[in-house]
Amino acid sequence: MKLPVSTEWLLHCAATLAQLESGATASAAQLAGYYDLPAPYLAKQLQALVKAGVLSATTGPRGGFRLGRPASEITLLQIVEAVDGASSPYECREIRQQGRGALPPEQCLRTCVIAEKMADAHEAWRRSLAGVSLADILTTLPSTAVPRTRSILTDTPSPHN
Amino acid sequence: MKLPVSTEWLLHCAATLAQLESGATASAAQLAGYYDLPAPYLAKQLQALVKAGVLSATTGPRGGFRLGRPASEITLLQIVEAVDGASSPYECREIRQQGRGALPPEQCLRTCVIAEKMADAHEAWRRSLAGVSLADILTTLPSTAVPRTRSILTDTPSPHN
Repeated sequence: MKLPVSTEWLLHCAATLAQLESGATASAAQLAGYYDLPAPYLAKQLQALVKAGVLSATTGPRGGFRLGRPASEITLLQIVEAVDGASSPYECREIRQQGRGALPPEQCLRTCVIAEKMADAHEAWRRSLAGVSLADILTTLPSTAVPRTRSILTDTPSPHN
Repeated sequence: MKLPVSTEWLLHCAATLAQLESGATASAAQLAGYYDLPAPYLAKQLQALVKAGVLSATTGPRGGFRLGRPASEITLLQIVEAVDGASSPYECREIRQQGRGALPPEQCLRTCVIAEKMADAHEAWRRSLAGVSLADILTTLPSTAVPRTRSILTDTPSPHN
């Protein structure tokens, strides 16, 4: 059970964009340079966050990415599920209905209790991540973080550096 | 983020073994027939549960698998982690320490707050599964389940059927 490596990238990029001045953007190349990540793959993943409404993208020579809504309304769950999808890690293939021990369909009208307990655990995981917003993350950063982040992103000399 | 397909197999096999009379065993072939599963791969996975202490294995012509401890002391978490390992689905590769935005080591003495929140979610998932034992699962089954399970497993004519 593994989340994609890019989960870390997108969580950090979103937290970085949350530190920009209102209206400011950063390009995929700038974000890739900030964390030394492969720009083309990161760009694709950033588009997934745009699709989920977590980010918005502006085009043009000064275009780039910014948050799609206030940092207090973007949760870690929304970012993780934009990257990896929202399906449960546990797959129930109804083996209770196959083989010598197969239960008849009328005894399988309710969800299997094992699948139910696995779904409960997934919901506990989701609730935990839904309880943390980008704004919450920002409150934990030292006071030097935001000016530092803005300065490094602004200083990036070229979008391909 | 996916658990192996065999997670369902092992959860069901363990719940099935929990229904046997004290001291009774079932072979990998019997369990495979009960759920129509590939016996060699199931046998390998059952050994992982033995290694974790969830099951114990007896050898010989009448040998097989039974619970390694009382059903009330076996949790869904122990079974899932015997199959898939106990590591978190989120991997932190410390990208905060690389690229143009790299933080100096002295600012990275504490775990990254994002990794911390992802670990909290994994712990919520683990707690949920640790709160459900095989005995809890058995209390949800209809009264006909245990005699039916025992009868089907006992009637299996040959260990290779």
